[in-house]
Amino acid sequence: MNQIISLDQVSGILVCQSGCILEALDHYLSNYELTMPLDLGAKGSCQIGGNVSTNAGGIRLLRYGSLHGNVLGLEVVLPNGEIVDCLTTLRKDNTGYDLKQLFIGAEGTLGIITAVSILCPPQPKSVSVALLGCETFDSILQVFKSSKLYLGEILSAFEFMDSQSMILVKENLKLNSPLVDYPFYALVECSGSNAHHDEEKLMSLLHAVLDKGEALDGCIVTDSAKIKNIWSLRERCAEALMYDGYCYKYDVSLPLSAFYQLVLDMRDRLGANATRVVAYGHVGDGNLHLNITSRQYSKTTFDLIEPFVFEWVAKYRGSISAEHGLGLKKREYIHHSKTPSAVALMAAVKKTIDPKGIMNPYKVLPESILR
Amino acid sequence: MNQIISLDQVSGILVCQSGCILEALDHYLSNYELTMPLDLGAKGSCQIGGNVSTNAGGIRLLRYGSLHGNVLGLEVVLPNGEIVDCLTTLRKDNTGYDLKQLFIGAEGTLGIITAVSILCPPQPKSVSVALLGCETFDSILQVFKSSKLYLGEILSAFEFMDSQSMILVKENLKLNSPLVDYPFYALVECSGSNAHHDEEKLMSLLHAVLDKGEALDGCIVTDSAKIKNIWSLRERCAEALMYDGYCYKYDVSLPLSAFYQLVLDMRDRLGANATRVVAYGHVGDGNLHLNITSRQYSKTTFDLIEPFVFEWVAKYRGSISAEHGLGLKKREYIHHSKTPSAVALMAAVKKTIDPKGIMNPYKVLPESILR
Repeated sequence: MNQIISLDQVSGILVCQSGCILEALDHYLSNYELTMPLDLGAKGSCQIGGNVSTNAGGIRLLRYGSLHGNVLGLEVVLPNGEIVDCLTTLRKDNTGYDLKQLFIGAEGTLGIITAVSILCPPQPKSVSVALLGCETFDSILQVFKSSKLYLGEILSAFEFMDSQSMILVKENLKLNSPLVDYPFYALVECSGSNAHHDEEKLMSLLHAVLDKGEALDGCIVTDSAKIKNIWSLRERCAEALMYDGYCYKYDVSLPLSAFYQLVLDMRDRLGANATRVVAYGHVGDGNLHLNITSRQYSKTTFDLIEPFVFEWVAKYRGSISAEHGLGLKKREYIHHSKTPSAVALMAAVKKTIDPKGIMNPYKVLPESILR
Repeated sequence: MNQIISLDQVSGILVCQSGCILEALDHYLSNYELTMPLDLGAKGSCQIGGNVSTNAGGIRLLRYGSLHGNVLGLEVVLPNGEIVDCLTTLRKDNTGYDLKQLFIGAEGTLGIITAVSILCPPQPKSVSVALLGCETFDSILQVFKSSKLYLGEILSAFEFMDSQSMILVKENLKLNSPLVDYPFYALVECSGSNAHHDEEKLMSLLHAVLDKGEALDGCIVTDSAKIKNIWSLRERCAEALMYDGYCYKYDVSLPLSAFYQLVLDMRDRLGANATRVVAYGHVGDGNLHLNITSRQYSKTTFDLIEPFVFEWVAKYRGSISAEHGLGLKKREYIHHSKTPSAVALMAAVKKTIDPKGIMNPYKVLPESILR
């Protein structure tokens, strides 16, 4: 089930079977100056059906939006064996409920996706990256706001790292940063259709944030090897954490106003019970990766973290799982991110479509609500 | 119920009650250099709750995508009186089914939307428009493809008119076009964050399409009064039709490969039974507005048009209602755009959420399926 069914080169609408590998689709599209609207670290092995079932986010979400907007159609097999063909290639279709949306992010608990129709944007012709050093997390937010104003439509990623993340990749992976040490770092990527215009915009941003004192230092790179080096500081954080011994990992969404406070509170709470409390993530998407390391797993440390972290996120109306879904391990925590009436409505939908509970059982919804 | 609840100026996430007028929201946002991700002719009177309930499209869809991607949260009152609070302000939240999607475009048949959380992009700093004359509809598609390549991220609208549409506004409204007569016209709008860059890109596009022979003539305007004049050629088509007497109106989505053939087939079929068969629309969204005029309503003409038009659209897997929904008049035609298994699943969802059928009754789904 890894066949491409059709590509409309003019509209950029691709239809393919669900077993197609994400990277293979992107390679195929590059022949037509198009690109996939999502990109993940796992692109070499993940399949588009799984991407849709888990509502995968990734680093292009800031630019192209979520799969709920980019997926135009799905073919799905229901638990009763019936095939629901909503595999249209239309950008606009207001004829009844948008059923395909139910299956995006349902983690396979409502049906099995067998084919996908997806809108693919033009491939960017140029990419540039800036790395900026900032004094406070509030400055990071100011730089984000300035980036949206100065870069507008070409802003394609806005990531942050705290100083502990930078120390982590320097110590554990011997990576080098082009900047001296700062409390916070912003990685700003822009990609567009005109290299000259894009560099000019990024340069204006750099001057503006330095003039306004939002950033203390910064550099711009346009060479692809240097871009890769800067991205590796951010992307290899996850790998660097493992060198510390054990890692407690959390992937949460928070309103930007509360974003970094969770990290400070966790650091206070854990004190010497953690080797590091490290934070990085997609500021542009409100998605924080919070990681706590220790020499080995400790029940004491774990009990200090959970359920504290879920309760903290719930208090600020965040999400306890921004990208990774609930699956088996987090399904009993759903009430921290969803109200009882919402969970009850989910259960009603599940019972309507899968009354015998045979689709990916024991996942997403709490056991009690399904009885 | 017309209060703004919150605005996060950094992320651009607006939360408001459902009775807010679209234009009022846009004015409010302009104070913060933000804009609404949708725009319609009816913006001065339509309410955001209705926009979401009908999944309104409009002229910014090409640029910012659909409400399924931009609406981040909803508060909805269910038929049993329960309030489902999914009013989060998060771009990423993979905790269970994305319930809000069910209510987007459901035309009020599943619940009543009382509040909306929506992602608002930065306000463009510059707008430019090109009007191009083309020999064939195929050239229009070539110009669309070139526009995506040359304008990339700043392309904000791509509309087409056929010669009959241009004759219509000239004859019935005495409007002037800056170009001499051509069989087809493309209206290309770009909006971005840097006027100088944007004009340079639009100029490159104009040179390229003229050099390649995709367009025969063209002009670029950047002055807001002139932009308005060019837009009025396209936007006032609907008004101009009324001067002919009676108008049979269709709003369909079609794959671009079949887009204009429907117009040619209809013109052949109707012959002298119609005064005009006029076509214009959003090529960028695959959305065709097909209009047929006659001195007065004629049953003969009507019977030649329907159900022929719906069957034609179904044959090419189009949508019989791109933007306007099914409502009361088109609900019995849903099978032309949706398969029986999809309609059955819609009915199952409707019966689960609204077992008594009290929410906006007699709309969207055919009577027979709800029994």
